Amino acid sequence: MASADAYADEPWGHRHLPNFIVRSKEPFNAEACPDRLVDSFITPTEQHFRRNHGPIPNIDAQAWSMSIEINAESSSVAKVKRTLRLDDLSKLPQFEVVAVLECAGNRRDGLKAIKPVNGVTWGAGTASNARWGGCRLRDVLAAAGVPAHLCDPFYANPRHVEFAAYGEVTDDEQYASSIPLEWAMNPLNMVLVATEMNGMPLLRDHGFPARIVAPGIIGARWVKWLKYIRVQDRESDGYYQQRDYKILPPIAGASNCEEFWPRFPALMEMNIQSAICRPTADECLQIGRPYRVRGYALTGGGRAVDRVEVSLDGGRTWNLADMYTMQTKADSRSGQRDWTAKHWAWVLWSFRIESVPPNCTIACRAWDSGGNTQPSAAVWNYRGVMNNSVFHVHPPTTGSAPSRL
Amino acid sequence: MASADAYADEPWGHRHLPNFIVRSKEPFNAEACPDRLVDSFITPTEQHFRRNHGPIPNIDAQAWSMSIEINAESSSVAKVKRTLRLDDLSKLPQFEVVAVLECAGNRRDGLKAIKPVNGVTWGAGTASNARWGGCRLRDVLAAAGVPAHLCDPFYANPRHVEFAAYGEVTDDEQYASSIPLEWAMNPLNMVLVATEMNGMPLLRDHGFPARIVAPGIIGARWVKWLKYIRVQDRESDGYYQQRDYKILPPIAGASNCEEFWPRFPALMEMNIQSAICRPTADECLQIGRPYRVRGYALTGGGRAVDRVEVSLDGGRTWNLADMYTMQTKADSRSGQRDWTAKHWAWVLWSFRIESVPPNCTIACRAWDSGGNTQPSAAVWNYRGVMNNSVFHVHPPTTGSAPSRL
Repeated sequence: MASADAYADEPWGHRHLPNFIVRSKEPFNAEACPDRLVDSFITPTEQHFRRNHGPIPNIDAQAWSMSIEINAESSSVAKVKRTLRLDDLSKLPQFEVVAVLECAGNRRDGLKAIKPVNGVTWGAGTASNARWGGCRLRDVLAAAGVPAHLCDPFYANPRHVEFAAYGEVTDDEQYASSIPLEWAMNPLNMVLVATEMNGMPLLRDHGFPARIVAPGIIGARWVKWLKYIRVQDRESDGYYQQRDYKILPPIAGASNCEEFWPRFPALMEMNIQSAICRPTADECLQIGRPYRVRGYALTGGGRAVDRVEVSLDGGRTWNLADMYTMQTKADSRSGQRDWTAKHWAWVLWSFRIESVPPNCTIACRAWDSGGNTQPSAAVWNYRGVMNNSVFHVHPPTTGSAPSRL
Repeated sequence: MASADAYADEPWGHRHLPNFIVRSKEPFNAEACPDRLVDSFITPTEQHFRRNHGPIPNIDAQAWSMSIEINAESSSVAKVKRTLRLDDLSKLPQFEVVAVLECAGNRRDGLKAIKPVNGVTWGAGTASNARWGGCRLRDVLAAAGVPAHLCDPFYANPRHVEFAAYGEVTDDEQYASSIPLEWAMNPLNMVLVATEMNGMPLLRDHGFPARIVAPGIIGARWVKWLKYIRVQDRESDGYYQQRDYKILPPIAGASNCEEFWPRFPALMEMNIQSAICRPTADECLQIGRPYRVRGYALTGGGRAVDRVEVSLDGGRTWNLADMYTMQTKADSRSGQRDWTAKHWAWVLWSFRIESVPPNCTIACRAWDSGGNTQPSAAVWNYRGVMNNSVFHVHPPTTGSAPSRL
């Protein structure tokens, strides 16, 4: 639990509040104003959402260190513990990856509208795209002396890598979470111990001095303010792995969730998602005039967004949107996709309405390379995670409506 | 095109017609009776659906050979061509994998009900689970002298591996299709040159003497009656890669599909899918009596099925089904999943109705480890592929209905 004055040292200096919809001040939870997100393929660092479970650690970069540990129950595996500092990381090969970071609670408001959920309210502003820089986790483990055979996916144990953060959190002794070791070691997956975001050192809010970047995986596993990295037999037993960030079935709620936590797996990959950023729900559209609808789409696990569609008639008919993304990704104009490359960045898309109709409900939906699309209606779950139902906006309209003639 | 008497030598001896719903005789296309599919976790070979684009080749095992080729445009890559026979394959390490094979057209009937589609009508009987045996594709390529560095996913070219089949087909000069080389070479993905199915040599209908098994990927890539395997720069340019087995947007139809084929990618992974096998649409249920609903669920790309739910009230409320699958897969009773293992088999599930209500519509839906679920309504596409909308059945009921009191 956070102590009374734990929030006395928050980094207000780099929180430009007009950029955000602030959902809670302590811990600081703020989403981007969604209409800003479509201005730039790389979200400016200052506009990137902030999602915290406690006060922000204030870490001296020179004094910082993290430990790399092996903690396997099988007796044949030697326990290893080594300490790394920023200087050690800077000597390893440096990589960059453009990847979208999405909170599993993105669009929780759509589930809260059905029934109360246990979690911070979020609109569609907890997804953003950044250029992350740092060392590959696989190189960090090797540099710390983790034996290579332990990282062979065919080796029986250990199978997980746990990350823990400095700082206090509201629900546990520390923030800890894990991902499968096989995923972490695959060089195609570009899991980083990141020290930079968009070419600059991480902000305190974003995990200074070092955080995990796990492209294609929900934000809860991108642990900030790294304290240790531990290769181990089991998943993290931390609260945020075992009792949060899971999709429970609709029959599970506050009174009976204890029964369901151990029966459902921890979330990893993002699902197929899209949102309309413009118009916002209170942007007034001129009837009969053209308007360009804009939004983002993303998916997880390295899959590609193959298609985004927009409906102006409540989902009866759908039109293809124009997609913009990186060259390594799906190109809606050319046939062959680079299937070898995995897809980590988001897609920005737009669709031009030639003549805005009165009282139009605009909807968007996306499809990914796994053949999945978004469900038309949201399915409630207790923690309000992974809501990817078809996105609707019903902006006010003004001007001469054909229906008024 | 198949010649006039091309179908004179079909293997009718191993086609027990009562096992099937025959959709076309030439080519022979027959789906399993769905109610049989839930009798056995491993589908008996004789009940496994048959999906063909032409007559069945009649291959002499002793005379059969396939060639292994490299055909890369980059001049630094030496062209390789070597011939392998069954005897060569038998000397390589043998592997087995239990994997579900699903036709991308499974449940096409649900799309045909919306608007005509171009393709054989299928219900939910073109998915089946089998134990496949043979050599790993990576070992076959190595045995044929394909240089190891060509199979490094970071090597620029080639990036695809094409499979072609012996025999004539209706739409092209041969049946050819490809998958990404990176996928094929990853030992976790268990791509096989299979010679056995459920412990026996392949039947002619299933690809004798050798076929591709590509777990997690749609059946169209599991090429039968192998003629060649070719490592190359590009995707297969065959009809079944470039002009079929793609999800076109709803605005694409017979008159304008030429414009859309090159703009959309070839399908690879299956999407999250589930179907009710019992009751069938014409099975009469006794009102007020218990009944156990049964079905299957599956997904692609190595993801796990995390949850199956059943609704008795048209999707208003949902109940958890009991799932059965292999030990390496999601266990609905225990917490931690083996995340390292990929998930290739299907899930059989059941749900006990304590007292059958009159006029009930039973629905099922599944969720996978990518956080995806099935859309509530089917979205039409021209080829009628990848329909994974929520499955409904409305069986007749009989007996004393509470509503009649």
